[in-house]
Amino acid sequence: MNTESSAGDADARARDAVQALYAGDAASKRLGIEILEVAPGRVRIAMIVRPDMVNGHGICHGGLLFTLADSAFAFACNSHGIAMVAAGAAIEFLAPAPQGERLIADAVETFRTDRHGIYDIAISNSGGEQFAHFRGRCARLRLPGPPAGRPPSSPQDVP
Amino acid sequence: MNTESSAGDADARARDAVQALYAGDAASKRLGIEILEVAPGRVRIAMIVRPDMVNGHGICHGGLLFTLADSAFAFACNSHGIAMVAAGAAIEFLAPAPQGERLIADAVETFRTDRHGIYDIAISNSGGEQFAHFRGRCARLRLPGPPAGRPPSSPQDVP
Amino acid sequence: MNTESSAGDADARARDAVQALYAGDAASKRLGIEILEVAPGRVRIAMIVRPDMVNGHGICHGGLLFTLADSAFAFACNSHGIAMVAAGAAIEFLAPAPQGERLIADAVETFRTDRHGIYDIAISNSGGEQFAHFRGRCARLRLPGPPAGRPPSSPQDVP
Amino acid sequence: MNTESSAGDADARARDAVQALYAGDAASKRLGIEILEVAPGRVRIAMIVRPDMVNGHGICHGGLLFTLADSAFAFACNSHGIAMVAAGAAIEFLAPAPQGERLIADAVETFRTDRHGIYDIAISNSGGEQFAHFRGRCARLRLPGPPAGRPPSSPQDVP
Repeated sequence: MNTESSAGDADARARDAVQALYAGDAASKRLGIEILEVAPGRVRIAMIVRPDMVNGHGICHGGLLFTLADSAFAFACNSHGIAMVAAGAAIEFLAPAPQGERLIADAVETFRTDRHGIYDIAISNSGGEQFAHFRGRCARLRLPGPPAGRPPSSPQDVP
Repeated sequence: MNTESSAGDADARARDAVQALYAGDAASKRLGIEILEVAPGRVRIAMIVRPDMVNGHGICHGGLLFTLADSAFAFACNSHGIAMVAAGAAIEFLAPAPQGERLIADAVETFRTDRHGIYDIAISNSGGEQFAHFRGRCARLRLPGPPAGRPPSSPQDVP
Repeated sequence: MNTESSAGDADARARDAVQALYAGDAASKRLGIEILEVAPGRVRIAMIVRPDMVNGHGICHGGLLFTLADSAFAFACNSHGIAMVAAGAAIEFLAPAPQGERLIADAVETFRTDRHGIYDIAISNSGGEQFAHFRGRCARLRLPGPPAGRPPSSPQDVP
Repeated sequence: MNTESSAGDADARARDAVQALYAGDAASKRLGIEILEVAPGRVRIAMIVRPDMVNGHGICHGGLLFTLADSAFAFACNSHGIAMVAAGAAIEFLAPAPQGERLIADAVETFRTDRHGIYDIAISNSGGEQFAHFRGRCARLRLPGPPAGRPPSSPQDVP
């Protein structure tokens, strides 16, 4: 097996892991989140700011900007095929995102071991305007017993 | 005017400010967020984890936990009648919140001047189980021009 | 044993745990940090801003404000007698602290299980002026092998 | 003037700005912090973990890891020649840094306008082992009165 096909295999595994996660993620689908690109540790997704995502001034609710970044984070940190859960995150709001804007979230891997990781997500539009920066921390999912129960893309009791 | 009626006045002003904000907040209403208590600098709100808020494992999306806390933050920091906008926030996820859970977000004021503030929000249920802790920073809304455009409850360009 | 003496026992244990930590903490001692009060989950310490802690304008270096808060955090999270290590922290700087100022750091316990915790530290002076707010996360020390090696008051590989 | 010499000019201005800051920074000098590289928005500095920087177990105090990162942050965000002050920061501790270790802090610019910025600092050693990740937010220094008073490298009242 040459290096190229190995990279191709890793990309395919990453796409499979993210698709499996996305398939069960009613919240991301409800928000119209769309997956654009997936590679090991890197994900790009998009969301359009709809009328039910804004306040009375037509600006995206900060919580939904966070949710977009958090989905990108969950996809990126689970792209290696090892189940990871979010332990915490911080976001800086830079500019208001108007209704109708198509937001793009780019997730990159800043640090990773098999037990935890740090991921940075930038939210911008296609013109390069930046709306928010997010940093998330994840930890390996500890299965408490047989039937799991604890999902790879959600909060947990191991900060 | 005695002290009691002053406190009553401040409470009434806080309720008015929060109701005005909530009235235009399509995102919070879309999530079924309910206002339980309002006082100057303090707010308690609730949200039930619905099927469209979870992933495939029946656990609330971390972004929507954040959104609940962020709404409580916006209401609390605007309860004094001075328009404030979120500059950033951090959240720690402590335990997964299952579908059907009624989450309560309690916001308290940790620091405040007329120009900025820090608010702490705890998310728990009626039994006292804790799901997340959130700390938000806000800054006074700078009106860039004529009659606003920039809303009191959303991100902005003044971190 | 009555409740009062139990509380007294817990206080004594907390003081012993903090004193043991402080005894080996060359960095805190080098900065002249002084322990004022200790109870389970609560600590108050102080530090005077010396000439070697400031920049050319006579203002305390932000890193040393953080260090004061971080020491209060380490003492508070280890006050129950279970070895905990810092996993991360965030600080908001509110006002510059001038040379000669006596800074007081008050640590309170916001969340705690036997495995992890969240502590909030406020830095102020005796007049109530606030300089910074800090939030720290800790996790239980995992002993990697026999003679410990990993200290209770320092960073580690278990965020 | 060609592009190369412009870049050279910008580098020279960045070095001058950082040297001026460092010259007055008693705290950074007291910790033995050494400047390795400077460019607009990018700085690399180093610090050796001395006996007076550790706790009883020979591990660097988390506050001093933060201080190293905070100095790199101050230098980087002031490298454009516009006075910026730290508004807040967060750090994740990844591994304990033993006494004697030479720590390297690399600062990069993640976001910047003339009024504020976000900088990311990684702390590692020459072998590539990572000890901490830091993210800092800065805001433009507002001069409250005559010529200065408020320093470019310290906390302030404008989060």
